[in-house]
Amino acid sequence: MDIVRCSLQLLSLLFFFISSLCVSGTESRLPKLGAVRKNIRPGLQFASDNSVSSDLVTFYYTQTLDHFNYKPESYTTFQQRYVINFKYWGGARASAPIFVHFGAEEDLDYDIRGVRFLVDNAPRFKALLLYIEHRYYGKSKPYGSSEKVYKNASSLGYFNSAQAIADYAAVIIHVKKKYSASNSPVIVCGGSYGGMLAAWFRLKYPHVALGALASSAPILYFDDIAPRQGYYSIVTKDFKEASETCYQTIRRSWAEIDKVASKPNGLSILSKKFKTCKPLKKTFELKDYLDSIYAEAAQYNDPPEYPVSVVCGGIDGAPSRTDILGRIFAGVIAYKGNDSCYDMDEYKYPDETYLGYRWQTCSELVMPIGHERDSMFQPEPFNLADFVKGCKRLYGILPKPHWITTYYGGHDIKLILHRFASNIIFSNGLRDPYSSGGVLENISDSLIALSTVNGSHCLDIQAAKPSDPYWLVQQRKTEVQIIEGWISKYYTDLLEYKDKNGAR
Amino acid sequence: MDIVRCSLQLLSLLFFFISSLCVSGTESRLPKLGAVRKNIRPGLQFASDNSVSSDLVTFYYTQTLDHFNYKPESYTTFQQRYVINFKYWGGARASAPIFVHFGAEEDLDYDIRGVRFLVDNAPRFKALLLYIEHRYYGKSKPYGSSEKVYKNASSLGYFNSAQAIADYAAVIIHVKKKYSASNSPVIVCGGSYGGMLAAWFRLKYPHVALGALASSAPILYFDDIAPRQGYYSIVTKDFKEASETCYQTIRRSWAEIDKVASKPNGLSILSKKFKTCKPLKKTFELKDYLDSIYAEAAQYNDPPEYPVSVVCGGIDGAPSRTDILGRIFAGVIAYKGNDSCYDMDEYKYPDETYLGYRWQTCSELVMPIGHERDSMFQPEPFNLADFVKGCKRLYGILPKPHWITTYYGGHDIKLILHRFASNIIFSNGLRDPYSSGGVLENISDSLIALSTVNGSHCLDIQAAKPSDPYWLVQQRKTEVQIIEGWISKYYTDLLEYKDKNGAR
Repeated sequence: MDIVRCSLQLLSLLFFFISSLCVSGTESRLPKLGAVRKNIRPGLQFASDNSVSSDLVTFYYTQTLDHFNYKPESYTTFQQRYVINFKYWGGARASAPIFVHFGAEEDLDYDIRGVRFLVDNAPRFKALLLYIEHRYYGKSKPYGSSEKVYKNASSLGYFNSAQAIADYAAVIIHVKKKYSASNSPVIVCGGSYGGMLAAWFRLKYPHVALGALASSAPILYFDDIAPRQGYYSIVTKDFKEASETCYQTIRRSWAEIDKVASKPNGLSILSKKFKTCKPLKKTFELKDYLDSIYAEAAQYNDPPEYPVSVVCGGIDGAPSRTDILGRIFAGVIAYKGNDSCYDMDEYKYPDETYLGYRWQTCSELVMPIGHERDSMFQPEPFNLADFVKGCKRLYGILPKPHWITTYYGGHDIKLILHRFASNIIFSNGLRDPYSSGGVLENISDSLIALSTVNGSHCLDIQAAKPSDPYWLVQQRKTEVQIIEGWISKYYTDLLEYKDKNGAR
Repeated sequence: MDIVRCSLQLLSLLFFFISSLCVSGTESRLPKLGAVRKNIRPGLQFASDNSVSSDLVTFYYTQTLDHFNYKPESYTTFQQRYVINFKYWGGARASAPIFVHFGAEEDLDYDIRGVRFLVDNAPRFKALLLYIEHRYYGKSKPYGSSEKVYKNASSLGYFNSAQAIADYAAVIIHVKKKYSASNSPVIVCGGSYGGMLAAWFRLKYPHVALGALASSAPILYFDDIAPRQGYYSIVTKDFKEASETCYQTIRRSWAEIDKVASKPNGLSILSKKFKTCKPLKKTFELKDYLDSIYAEAAQYNDPPEYPVSVVCGGIDGAPSRTDILGRIFAGVIAYKGNDSCYDMDEYKYPDETYLGYRWQTCSELVMPIGHERDSMFQPEPFNLADFVKGCKRLYGILPKPHWITTYYGGHDIKLILHRFASNIIFSNGLRDPYSSGGVLENISDSLIALSTVNGSHCLDIQAAKPSDPYWLVQQRKTEVQIIEGWISKYYTDLLEYKDKNGAR
């Protein structure tokens, strides 16, 4: 099974800052990665991708650092990586399509391996495949090495979504010119944060992309359009639906952890009980680790394994006399495998995804996700003031929590876009906690919401497998049909346009 | 008669740089202002605007200097002026509309006095009137005084259209919030460069503006979408249509100037003949002055005077034995009035409009307007390489001639926008030289081209007058009807949306 290549890193980051404030002994949230990158369960490994890589050609584009400024320093350039698979392309003469994958908060290599929807369907469309790496990730770093890049707000300032999609526009225009493909329709695609970029790109650059497939893109999780409890209420629902007893066990476990911790040597008891690699210093470390496991299992609750059921299988399947924390640990073992010890820091390793996305949430991507009431977690509401303080402390700058809706919109989206824009698929799996910030209702005939009741985060853009359930097969089929519809309408328009204006 | 408040400054600027290169004795273009600001003919004065100003309230918004960067210095703010006329507003409760005028390359006071279409129609719509000044003009200068602002590329870097329309979004959102007018539909309006901003704004910020009236907006005069000779071929056509003999006289006059200049004391003869305030140093000064007069007369060829006819009246009406240059001078007198001397520098006074718009053309607004063949002018094609060199020399930075089409599009506009976007009126007068870069054909049912055969630059958004010809009255009427259609459709949508989602 391919590893899920589509993730939003923010869960961890939203709480990072609060922890960095950590005052007066109160427990504070520590970083917690929603990513699966470093959390590969046995069996969840990268597919051997020799079959893919031989078709790929890597290029670098000399990209402008700042598209929106004309200071001399804004003219600084960096090398942006893009990768092309020519294998299936019908060519410029046939105006064959170009499928573009938008890199997100990770090295492009991950996307190429993980997001297989485009490759799976390229032969059918005779499409050129173009993958573009997101600025400040992978091999597309303006200031060279990671440490230097992620150091401070002055070098990070150019690291934002508006600059990133302007990069994508420049690269696509460049590639179309390079291969004389001015008439080839461009379909852009991305998942999670990359899905937001894809949707926003179609809205901002309709002259560059004919349509967008935005998979699991929580474009409404900003500025309190979506409810703050959305994310964790779906995590909770996923567990409750998988098993009521499992849900109850988790719900009760937090107080149980506190109870044990309050005993003499309580942290030491917990450390032993959960086989932590290092002795716990705070209960928060353990709670945060468990929180990350549950969130990740829910977010990537993919068939055929269904990780939530795996965790609950461990919890519910423990011998009948097992106490609550013993069951919780059995859930950890079921999910993580039987290890000699468990690393509580696993979800907060400061790699470039972690560091990069932390910056992005601290500048513009402020998603107010909190543990509110009515979840299986201890209440811990999102606190914007604390978040802002944390960012200020980390980078010396203030987040702009209203910028995303100022630039891209989001409020009253159906009212606004019902008679504006076209050709976007918003695909979601309703078991994905991020679907709470997704577009789940059709906006118009060609701004389509495509949800699956049992789907998870970015499931549709992963590789098709023989074991895929019927509803997933259908979802992908519908996506292909919709995109075919856009393209065939475009070809008709193109012919008419050429007839009127002379061939180009 | 109100002065025309709608202009594009670039004519002068396109040639400035070439002049600053001025090599090997060849005649080079000098600055030449297309504006009428400092070229007020007798009778062409500002209307006394006491009636207007008493209804206006001035505010300042603390605006972000750089919307697309998160460097500490990007958080610098400046005070942006906006002016509101509350007199006609039906109020937030009635969701009464907000009409927004986008300031362009001038002090906002000029716009408020000159662009009267919104005021004329505000009572009918019960609209709030909001005028927003463009950054770096008037009282909205990030770095204080003009000299300081216009000094170099480092302080000018933030001075561009993407930042400007982001400003407008921020101000409109702020005003709507301030007056609890979240449901009030916003119609944005602008002329010439301001018209481009209005059209681009609807494309980029549909969640902020319901529709746009883009008057005389040459959004296709970039990246060689429109032909380079477009502007001057229309100037030529205007004169030819007004009078074939006048056109012939002008066409022959350039060689005549050269002939006289080649005589001993030739420049002195010309200086006397044209009553120049200072002795001519080059024939180019005279040619450039005349060029500016013809361009301006054509661009603002407004009824009831029709300045082209005024110029030609002078040229054709001179006593029958008058020689070519005598006729040309008679045209100058007819247009400018009988003065003691004529200031050849009149069109190149370095005021803030001149300096500001020069920067804008040198950074992003690169319009390749040239004197190509088949005009009544001496051929002098637009030379991008020279233009680029001139900008480099002036500011130390290179223009980005492809950026406008990268960010806003423009190529194949009908193909691209036919099934995307809505609610823009592109109004043009076909006698306006800039109409050669305008949208002159409907793109879809709600992306409407509204041209008048006899119209001039931004004529439709000036004040209605009893002397207005029928076609102009009709053009404005149609504009009003179209905007009414957008708004009434919006109210229907809003009701339906509220019914479904609960009142806000």
